[in-house]
Amino acid sequence: MSDKILLAHGSGGKLSHDLVTQRFLPILSNPILSTLNDAAVVGFQGKLAFTTDSYVVNPIFFPGGDIGKLAVCGTVNDLAMVGAKPLYLSLSFIIEEGLTHSELDRIVASIQSATAEAGVSVITGDTKVVSHGCADKLFINTAGIGVVPEKICISGDNARVGDKVIVSGTVGDHGIAVLSQREGLKFSTSIQSDCAPLNGLVEEMLRVTPNIRCFRDPTRGGLATTLNEISEQSQVGIRINEDDIPLRREVQAACDMLGLDPLHVANEGKLVAIVAQDDAERLLESMRQHKHGDDAAIIGEVTAERPGRVVMKTSFGATRIIDMLVGDILPRIC
Amino acid sequence: MSDKILLAHGSGGKLSHDLVTQRFLPILSNPILSTLNDAAVVGFQGKLAFTTDSYVVNPIFFPGGDIGKLAVCGTVNDLAMVGAKPLYLSLSFIIEEGLTHSELDRIVASIQSATAEAGVSVITGDTKVVSHGCADKLFINTAGIGVVPEKICISGDNARVGDKVIVSGTVGDHGIAVLSQREGLKFSTSIQSDCAPLNGLVEEMLRVTPNIRCFRDPTRGGLATTLNEISEQSQVGIRINEDDIPLRREVQAACDMLGLDPLHVANEGKLVAIVAQDDAERLLESMRQHKHGDDAAIIGEVTAERPGRVVMKTSFGATRIIDMLVGDILPRIC
Repeated sequence: MSDKILLAHGSGGKLSHDLVTQRFLPILSNPILSTLNDAAVVGFQGKLAFTTDSYVVNPIFFPGGDIGKLAVCGTVNDLAMVGAKPLYLSLSFIIEEGLTHSELDRIVASIQSATAEAGVSVITGDTKVVSHGCADKLFINTAGIGVVPEKICISGDNARVGDKVIVSGTVGDHGIAVLSQREGLKFSTSIQSDCAPLNGLVEEMLRVTPNIRCFRDPTRGGLATTLNEISEQSQVGIRINEDDIPLRREVQAACDMLGLDPLHVANEGKLVAIVAQDDAERLLESMRQHKHGDDAAIIGEVTAERPGRVVMKTSFGATRIIDMLVGDILPRIC
Repeated sequence: MSDKILLAHGSGGKLSHDLVTQRFLPILSNPILSTLNDAAVVGFQGKLAFTTDSYVVNPIFFPGGDIGKLAVCGTVNDLAMVGAKPLYLSLSFIIEEGLTHSELDRIVASIQSATAEAGVSVITGDTKVVSHGCADKLFINTAGIGVVPEKICISGDNARVGDKVIVSGTVGDHGIAVLSQREGLKFSTSIQSDCAPLNGLVEEMLRVTPNIRCFRDPTRGGLATTLNEISEQSQVGIRINEDDIPLRREVQAACDMLGLDPLHVANEGKLVAIVAQDDAERLLESMRQHKHGDDAAIIGEVTAERPGRVVMKTSFGATRIIDMLVGDILPRIC
């Protein structure tokens, strides 16, 4: 039998059925997924968080992860960013005919391992296959459901003047790790993607104080875009200090070489938190105890000046406006 | 400004932001979607149904619908098939660079109109763009959340010997409508896709009796595959009568010409119901009052013979085994 995925694996017929029952269910199995009905049914009560992302990262395997791990962590993190405890994922594959079963198996194993770390279950799914040349190896969509604890109200429009801006670790690692594997762009670096589920870190922070104003994970568009979104949603200014932003020397070097601003480079295991000034130090301390927060730093504050604008005090003492990413310097980074 | 979607529209930066706020939000707007946080938050209590599908139909516009309408109806129908009232959708685009804004606008309008008919809201979403040649115009993923009324327990493993098999209308319309537009395969037909949200019909049927055993929508793989899945899940035999299966003359003619079995051709606005013998006639009557059920028919029954097998009494009086679709006669039909 061929090791390749064929169009017929997406037909909805016998080969689809075999793929699901022989390759997916034994790895991702749980009682809800195994019912194989058109929709999964579970009990739920409370504030429900719902999110989705499609993952088109190129290449599908990169240092520190692959598209499967990314598809779990990315969606888990979007749930965590509204303070939710992630519970359930849907998982949908769009496969280019010719992907090998062994590549797909590796990715399914990686999905399983990421769901185990995050404590979530895949409870419903779908598989489509398109002809060679009509997709690029594999795209994955996940949607996620989580429950938001009763008193939590975290939103991009909650930032207030005087709040502190915290980032949970070094910026730009994911983007540079993926770029280093990109065809025609190979360069040598030891940088690994930071791809990780952040719900544990968020839970830890909410234990310190439930009154966190905003969480956001600076993925596509990087830290600069995320801060701009918050400043626009909350109609406040944000001022950050270049010297305080955690940045690996290798990432800085790669950015210099490629002409990139590390503040525009994607992260997949970092969060930005806007927190009340009085909570900032305690939160920072608890973050640094956590494996996904050990390089956390306070990088700036929320100001009344220039609402909707982000400014940075540079290492040379100058002040410059930090804009959203314009154009796409790094297509298909996630 | 170019009418084309560019890679930068998927960057997560400024053009992504503009696409969402200027092209999507004004059409799909609702208070939850408009928060633009990483996840949407809503109250929920009860039995929650969750499902997902990616849509890769080719071409993206076809008689009776387009990929947008399909992406709403398909997911709404998967929720309805477990008896759920559909409430919320996520919406994720994977766009091939070069798709025009006007094509995308048409599809977003079509999504809006389908959500209005089905009574659901898009509350979270995502947009990715890949280079020309790395996808085929547009893929859409939707995931859906619905609420299952307390007493309802509909599942593919509930069919019992003596139950009746009902189909809600003519089979094969969607597949033939899409095929008629396929490059290199143009033939003349007046057939329109049956693509429609079935939650209204399901609600009507559950009003007649909450004790429906199984619902399933015979999409990819057609009626034959769906019946095989139910017979396997419930470990029963299913016997159907060819003469009782509603089938348009034009669909039969197209199938004859193309060498297809209409029982393997996809539907997007039909359901199969397995119901207790005593409820069958009353249900049929109520279905025929509904615009999406006016050709409904009882096509067979559940038997104790050959568990896991579907057999059909043909128009000529012979009996033949009806198998799942093997291979993929109709790639990218949904």
